[in-house]
Amino acid sequence: MAIITFTSDFGTRDHYLAAVKARIFNYNPNIQVIDISHNVEHYNVAHGAFVLNSVFRDFPKGTVHLVAINSLNEANDKYIAARIEDHFFVGTDNGFFSLLSEKPAIVVEILFDKNVVQTFPEKNIFAFAAVSLASGKNLYDLGPNIAANTLKRMVSRKLKSNKNLIEGNVIHVDNYGNAITNISKTLFEETAQGRNSVLSFGRENVESIQTVYHQSENGDCVALFNDLGLLEIAIKNGSASQLLGLHYDSPIRISFSPEIAV
Amino acid sequence: MAIITFTSDFGTRDHYLAAVKARIFNYNPNIQVIDISHNVEHYNVAHGAFVLNSVFRDFPKGTVHLVAINSLNEANDKYIAARIEDHFFVGTDNGFFSLLSEKPAIVVEILFDKNVVQTFPEKNIFAFAAVSLASGKNLYDLGPNIAANTLKRMVSRKLKSNKNLIEGNVIHVDNYGNAITNISKTLFEETAQGRNSVLSFGRENVESIQTVYHQSENGDCVALFNDLGLLEIAIKNGSASQLLGLHYDSPIRISFSPEIAV
Amino acid sequence: MAIITFTSDFGTRDHYLAAVKARIFNYNPNIQVIDISHNVEHYNVAHGAFVLNSVFRDFPKGTVHLVAINSLNEANDKYIAARIEDHFFVGTDNGFFSLLSEKPAIVVEILFDKNVVQTFPEKNIFAFAAVSLASGKNLYDLGPNIAANTLKRMVSRKLKSNKNLIEGNVIHVDNYGNAITNISKTLFEETAQGRNSVLSFGRENVESIQTVYHQSENGDCVALFNDLGLLEIAIKNGSASQLLGLHYDSPIRISFSPEIAV
Repeated sequence: MAIITFTSDFGTRDHYLAAVKARIFNYNPNIQVIDISHNVEHYNVAHGAFVLNSVFRDFPKGTVHLVAINSLNEANDKYIAARIEDHFFVGTDNGFFSLLSEKPAIVVEILFDKNVVQTFPEKNIFAFAAVSLASGKNLYDLGPNIAANTLKRMVSRKLKSNKNLIEGNVIHVDNYGNAITNISKTLFEETAQGRNSVLSFGRENVESIQTVYHQSENGDCVALFNDLGLLEIAIKNGSASQLLGLHYDSPIRISFSPEIAV
Repeated sequence: MAIITFTSDFGTRDHYLAAVKARIFNYNPNIQVIDISHNVEHYNVAHGAFVLNSVFRDFPKGTVHLVAINSLNEANDKYIAARIEDHFFVGTDNGFFSLLSEKPAIVVEILFDKNVVQTFPEKNIFAFAAVSLASGKNLYDLGPNIAANTLKRMVSRKLKSNKNLIEGNVIHVDNYGNAITNISKTLFEETAQGRNSVLSFGRENVESIQTVYHQSENGDCVALFNDLGLLEIAIKNGSASQLLGLHYDSPIRISFSPEIAV
Repeated sequence: MAIITFTSDFGTRDHYLAAVKARIFNYNPNIQVIDISHNVEHYNVAHGAFVLNSVFRDFPKGTVHLVAINSLNEANDKYIAARIEDHFFVGTDNGFFSLLSEKPAIVVEILFDKNVVQTFPEKNIFAFAAVSLASGKNLYDLGPNIAANTLKRMVSRKLKSNKNLIEGNVIHVDNYGNAITNISKTLFEETAQGRNSVLSFGRENVESIQTVYHQSENGDCVALFNDLGLLEIAIKNGSASQLLGLHYDSPIRISFSPEIAV
């Protein structure tokens, strides 16, 4: 059974979610729709891109990922389908895809009748495109190729690092209040070279980055590398975001003991 | 695979939702249950009817729609199954169905053992009825026919209109804070006959009803006809409900320039 | 199609839920995953156990129930699979299973490579274990047997009762604000022997325990035995928790008229 995943900011109080699913089942009742999240913050493309980026590779190659976030924002935003890292995506060229992956993308602009005003493209355009791809149709059946480098770009915060310092940012606060940063375990280990480090943010300094969550006591601040390989700051059985004032984009700094000249 | 849709005010913190689904799977493991919404406001029959009315026709004809909203309110509320617009419904005769559709309905009262006190009819009565219908059984297998005009009626706000004026109401505030009204595009166009119009609500006057959402700037008020063909008042990237004070039942008025005598 | 149910405190804003499901589908695309709840209060093992205990028996025997609540709390918490009441469970030995059922359990400790730090055992360990069991593999394929009486115990509040009195507690406040207690209909009826009773909590006294919800007026306090056979205190069309100050663990007392000596 082919899979379409579905990521949106639709929430769960209205008919929007079911309207898109109904359309999908009308086209092909044998498709399995898997909800990623429908509680992406309203219009927040970065939130949605973080969530989908964190999980799409866990699905079988060839899975189709339908993205419904802020699709009506700008008049000239194109509706696109893309093949990225052996997965298919259907959504709006509003910056989302520049945050999703930096790997090469094959992109088509989805053709539709522009005389019809679109107030619900996810139902009236994306559902059909996603079902086509999930049913094995070719990407180019949906519309003409466009150059991936013409897609809208949103610039995510870049890490700064030198041999004694890494400066990054919080890129997601999860449902538990854990603050996930853009500092990868790989960069940390390459930079640390076994040296001690101090993690700083706001007025806090944490002496050690732990490998496991459960070595600490309730209320302790824990910094560890999570399943995504990213540094995550948590409070055991509490909200790091609330208790430490960590929010989306908060700066995070790791400094390493300078090597002593001998 | 037959489909049962499921609309409720159960929320998602408890076992209620899963209890109904488990019962359905016990009767027939090959049925696909599609959630419409379980975050209908508690006991709010009008909210639930708006949501299901907005989407049920998007499902294949013959789909069964199970409705679990305020089923225990009144001692004499009947449990019913109905065929309306080639779809099947199972729920409580508490006014919900009068708000769902004004088309002809074939209705049966679902028989059950009235010596057993029902505290959870959705699990103990509706699941079986929905599975029966989804499995192709006849409506009359569930109980005797009752006249559709004996169903409880809730009166929805009616539009008033003359040749220069339409007066309607907000009938739903969605998850984004968009205010959806009962003023249809069809009525608007018939009345407008190409004339200019002014939309008024509270202290606001909007000179133009736009056809597309994205012609405006962030924070602008946008009035457009949505995918349901209904006038919707939105704030671009904001909540019209909060910022404009629009709530369920708020009055909305459209006045048209009188024709000038020549 | 085999069923895996899924109960967690993951919420629905992040990728955690989809990450576990993707792993399950990668192992076996023909498994149906049914969400019980993902809005269990964070780390609240008692809440999760109440919800799953209230519904797991409604699923077909042999169903696998994956539990993801507070899995990283303590370093020595084992990951276990268990067979209880002809159902299978996969989760963490953190006290959850002692609250789930008092029936005999066959338990195995799930083996995994302890050199790999586990920050997401639900995805990396539980998904595989659940799919194995759902695919018909033996419990002992997952790891060695451990004695059920070595599992961590959390003590739930015990009822006190004598021939004129039952003292219990609120064990769950549901999404409507209904307060569900640990006082069963069976105990009540055995104790009452047809006598009148007074239900007391806080400053309230309720003279009668009703059998049906709808005999009361809006705003009335209703006490009835629910579908689980447990005494539940509700406010018709209101929140008993808010209006009566009933919370998890609030004491509830039922006193019966003493028999009069003749």
